[in-house]
Amino acid sequence: MLFFMNDYGQACHPRILEALAKECQNSYDGYGTDPKCEEAANTIRELIGKPDAHVHFMVGGTPTNVVTIAHLLKPYEGVIAAKTGHIYRHETGAVEASGHRVIIKETADGKLTVDMIDGLVKEFEDEHTVKPKMVYLSDTTELGTIYKKAELKAISDYCHSHGLYLYLDGARLGAALTCPSNDLSIKDIANMVDAFYIGGTKNGTLIGEALVFINTELDDEIRFTIKQNNNLLAKGFIIGIQFQELLKGGENSLWLELARKENEMAKKLNDGLVAKGYDFVAPSDTNQIYPIITLKQHEELSKKVLYEPFRAVGDDKISVRFCTGYYTTDEDIEQLLAML
Amino acid sequence: MLFFMNDYGQACHPRILEALAKECQNSYDGYGTDPKCEEAANTIRELIGKPDAHVHFMVGGTPTNVVTIAHLLKPYEGVIAAKTGHIYRHETGAVEASGHRVIIKETADGKLTVDMIDGLVKEFEDEHTVKPKMVYLSDTTELGTIYKKAELKAISDYCHSHGLYLYLDGARLGAALTCPSNDLSIKDIANMVDAFYIGGTKNGTLIGEALVFINTELDDEIRFTIKQNNNLLAKGFIIGIQFQELLKGGENSLWLELARKENEMAKKLNDGLVAKGYDFVAPSDTNQIYPIITLKQHEELSKKVLYEPFRAVGDDKISVRFCTGYYTTDEDIEQLLAML
Amino acid sequence: MLFFMNDYGQACHPRILEALAKECQNSYDGYGTDPKCEEAANTIRELIGKPDAHVHFMVGGTPTNVVTIAHLLKPYEGVIAAKTGHIYRHETGAVEASGHRVIIKETADGKLTVDMIDGLVKEFEDEHTVKPKMVYLSDTTELGTIYKKAELKAISDYCHSHGLYLYLDGARLGAALTCPSNDLSIKDIANMVDAFYIGGTKNGTLIGEALVFINTELDDEIRFTIKQNNNLLAKGFIIGIQFQELLKGGENSLWLELARKENEMAKKLNDGLVAKGYDFVAPSDTNQIYPIITLKQHEELSKKVLYEPFRAVGDDKISVRFCTGYYTTDEDIEQLLAML
Amino acid sequence: MLFFMNDYGQACHPRILEALAKECQNSYDGYGTDPKCEEAANTIRELIGKPDAHVHFMVGGTPTNVVTIAHLLKPYEGVIAAKTGHIYRHETGAVEASGHRVIIKETADGKLTVDMIDGLVKEFEDEHTVKPKMVYLSDTTELGTIYKKAELKAISDYCHSHGLYLYLDGARLGAALTCPSNDLSIKDIANMVDAFYIGGTKNGTLIGEALVFINTELDDEIRFTIKQNNNLLAKGFIIGIQFQELLKGGENSLWLELARKENEMAKKLNDGLVAKGYDFVAPSDTNQIYPIITLKQHEELSKKVLYEPFRAVGDDKISVRFCTGYYTTDEDIEQLLAML
Repeated sequence: MLFFMNDYGQACHPRILEALAKECQNSYDGYGTDPKCEEAANTIRELIGKPDAHVHFMVGGTPTNVVTIAHLLKPYEGVIAAKTGHIYRHETGAVEASGHRVIIKETADGKLTVDMIDGLVKEFEDEHTVKPKMVYLSDTTELGTIYKKAELKAISDYCHSHGLYLYLDGARLGAALTCPSNDLSIKDIANMVDAFYIGGTKNGTLIGEALVFINTELDDEIRFTIKQNNNLLAKGFIIGIQFQELLKGGENSLWLELARKENEMAKKLNDGLVAKGYDFVAPSDTNQIYPIITLKQHEELSKKVLYEPFRAVGDDKISVRFCTGYYTTDEDIEQLLAML
Repeated sequence: MLFFMNDYGQACHPRILEALAKECQNSYDGYGTDPKCEEAANTIRELIGKPDAHVHFMVGGTPTNVVTIAHLLKPYEGVIAAKTGHIYRHETGAVEASGHRVIIKETADGKLTVDMIDGLVKEFEDEHTVKPKMVYLSDTTELGTIYKKAELKAISDYCHSHGLYLYLDGARLGAALTCPSNDLSIKDIANMVDAFYIGGTKNGTLIGEALVFINTELDDEIRFTIKQNNNLLAKGFIIGIQFQELLKGGENSLWLELARKENEMAKKLNDGLVAKGYDFVAPSDTNQIYPIITLKQHEELSKKVLYEPFRAVGDDKISVRFCTGYYTTDEDIEQLLAML
Repeated sequence: MLFFMNDYGQACHPRILEALAKECQNSYDGYGTDPKCEEAANTIRELIGKPDAHVHFMVGGTPTNVVTIAHLLKPYEGVIAAKTGHIYRHETGAVEASGHRVIIKETADGKLTVDMIDGLVKEFEDEHTVKPKMVYLSDTTELGTIYKKAELKAISDYCHSHGLYLYLDGARLGAALTCPSNDLSIKDIANMVDAFYIGGTKNGTLIGEALVFINTELDDEIRFTIKQNNNLLAKGFIIGIQFQELLKGGENSLWLELARKENEMAKKLNDGLVAKGYDFVAPSDTNQIYPIITLKQHEELSKKVLYEPFRAVGDDKISVRFCTGYYTTDEDIEQLLAML
Repeated sequence: MLFFMNDYGQACHPRILEALAKECQNSYDGYGTDPKCEEAANTIRELIGKPDAHVHFMVGGTPTNVVTIAHLLKPYEGVIAAKTGHIYRHETGAVEASGHRVIIKETADGKLTVDMIDGLVKEFEDEHTVKPKMVYLSDTTELGTIYKKAELKAISDYCHSHGLYLYLDGARLGAALTCPSNDLSIKDIANMVDAFYIGGTKNGTLIGEALVFINTELDDEIRFTIKQNNNLLAKGFIIGIQFQELLKGGENSLWLELARKENEMAKKLNDGLVAKGYDFVAPSDTNQIYPIITLKQHEELSKKVLYEPFRAVGDDKISVRFCTGYYTTDEDIEQLLAML
């Protein structure tokens, strides 16, 4: 089977395992209170230009979202998200299980706008209604689209003038920052949000995400929330070791190198599909693309290729997601294009 | 101030207080395990033609909804509702606080259709998504509209062929059953739903709603859930006493008498507004009507009349809710019409 | 059947119904934002000598406890209580359902001491353990015992020097304040706690408890929590009306009059039992007493008298609770004593 | 610093990393639905002699406990545990955060007995009280003690005749099964419990625990609960790969080899301390021992050795935990003994 299912299909990049192997016989204190996590946190602080930022290493994306939301919101406060947002669509109601509403807006391309947010904010009435208190964005979005600098700035300004926290899910932040149409730097993001995370799982590590608080008034005692939500990993240092290997080296980091590779592979596939006349759900130059194929094609293709169906388009078509990883090869792309 | 704010603006109908006064010096066991609750439950069983139905007397509408949803759903299951549904719009996220998602659909008139429900059901994928397991309807809806027999039947059939529970919020069931356009009987409802409630608070009692389970496989041990959700009233018998007074007498019950009165008053107001050329959010012949007025009118009117704004209509208009109670008088209607 | 089951066996004192009847045809705004609640709140502020206290009228005792705890504690914080405390023993885990641990201590007489609290506080370690943040007391306790002024003062001092909130459950505060051994005034209590409530349900009202915040930094936005926890009663004004009737008149209030009556009846019963040589679980001069009888006596007595078993004492005895109400008569006492 | 802090102080045994390295460039489907997890599950089924058992690979111990409890219990049901049990003492109220009470008993040695369980079960009254529905045991316990076959059998019989689920936390099951005083086999355990888990984190893996359901009526749809509780790891196959390496080989498995090593090191330390006349909190022949030292010794020792304080013993002593890992050396033991 060809593998276009996701960008977390292989254990990890070999350099990550090598970094772990080097440390395998050193003993560290548990739960992230160790020099390896501190070293990686310092690398992040430098990368984002925020020497006072707080960094918490988490196991995966869903708990990073849940912990942040649960820690920042009061029980009657809710978080605004696109309907395609991961916290609404693919976390089995984990946010609601922690007691909070995800307040959604349907979008064409997975991106929120100030107008959409403002519309939801205006639905708030009084103590009978959930109080919107946070905006959740993903960059890249779950549809592979990205936020432009001006768009994120406008949302940031809106949030901060309306008492809303702004949180950015960076599960695929590497792909966003390295795609051709991007004009945002990670320092821009750090200047605009209250908190965000840099994804490892979808960018070459075994496990792990780095949750970063710029607004350090918000994460007081968050380690209690992390532990209570099942994410204070006993061997926290193994995430620190991986992130240090992933992020060191600035523009030449493994993180950006792998992300660029993922985007390049997706672009080849995208260009090939455009040449063949396929339409897409939304334009993407990152590592997730959503072409529209016929149901008949889907039936055949799914016997030979692992990928995700997205949603029905009319009666006889379907949009599907092809997702490239750092491990996707030119041959993979050629074989897939040959089938379409 | 004229009072068109709601249908729970006065303590209760005098007959309710008299019934309580008669029992005031008798001692009863607590928490609803008393002969007065049993008597009222029997009256309900007879009324709905279901001698085996289970009846639980609750304090208010919000807890009745929350308890039913919390008791029937597993943590990862959700409940489908119209976006205007009480559980989404006016319960401060109480359903989410119990851990469950309210899966919403925007509607023009506050009513769900089979197509809408089916669309939401089809968004379910697998263990990464919330599993829709219940449909929540209100009759009357929060916009004053009602379900016709054929509509409710279609939804009931869909639910039962798709493994969904059907639950009907009857906070204003009296108004629904007694309005001119209604073709549903309470026995029809009892034949179509798994559970529903008959509202007392908005129909003349001090407090209290009667939660009825037709599908008695679903409410095993529900008294634990009622207690845990703060609704096992110590003096449960005072709700039983009120409901017996409210519901006894069949077609001539105080319940239906008061509901008819509410509807009649609203019809007068509605007819007057139609005659003056006002538009409405949705057609209603029950005790809540939603005319559209100008913002300027709203500014003036709100100084003299208590009522609820609903939502902006374009830049210079607003829809508002006028709600009549059993205590609304002809003079009230005339005075209000004179101001518009 | 003789009734010694509880102090909420009758609907309400006739004066309460009369007060409601007088207001029955006046319309008020909903959810406690009305002049009747304001009037009753002012009566309470005067009674406790705290003109700036915040008062929230609640439906019942369990939700009052749950709302206060849920509003004040962060998700990883817990509340310290005696194992016999209502929040641990008789609320079906409602506090845990809101996400918080009740941290318990076994006690002989239902009372916490500074040493007990300190022992539990010292079990706290770090982010792997629940953080104790509140102390829950009841006065009277669930065993009918009371806190002396010096005891409450010591606990209050401990709490405030250790960053713990102090909350007092006053479901039976009337009985506590009017019993012979009491040396606390309600003003003393208001000076020592962050919040407490004055119980209505067990003191003559149909429903209702008055939750009072002395530390008014703590209840910001609590109406959201009250609504979310199913306790923002639509007809909130009916609780205000009842509390005004209950509390007006200072030392001659209906509240204290009924409480004194309850205590007097219990004392007669207690004295009679002492004269007959019975032992008790704990000494009480309030309206709940816990004598120890044989299992054989219990078997016979429970056929003729409604009361609550408490717990086994050795193999052949049992402690039981006799609870008097404002409606208990001399004849009731004499008949019960005659059976023992 | 000497390291006696815990048994998860090093990333993993080198063989685990080698197994991952071999698979590093193969692509697998996500979330544990892959052939590597299936292979490891089969190894477990064979090991425990239960070909139909269900196996779920989890990230860590706390989420394994929380998921199992949350999935099996209704909202008003609770789980019985020793006060020293991990779910009570070291999970920051994660069980309560999922809505359930941990019903505790103080114990001298960390072990529950049938009498203790029965005492807690008898405290249950009715819908006003939390319903005990599960018993949580750990083997080894958090104090290093173990259950003998007859003890576990008695608890199992009690649970199954009283409608209680029996769940065993095997975070350190390897240490329990390989210690000199053990008479239980893993097949015995599988015959006595409804579910248990085999710990990897504390036995040589990077991450991961294997949750096993013997009673396969109980884990229907549990993958929803795992995802909702943040534990459906994207790269689930990396846990499968590790467990296959850990468990293959029967009596000669890496799992048992490492556990034996841990126990041997602890025994050396224990014997040395006994020879020096130290007392212990409870007798242990597994890899956690709890000697009692003076506060003065503790002050000095904690400057040179990493270990955990447990609790005060009188005014001038303290019990501490020394925990050995597979990486503890003879020199470590000798150096530690030399300091005491």
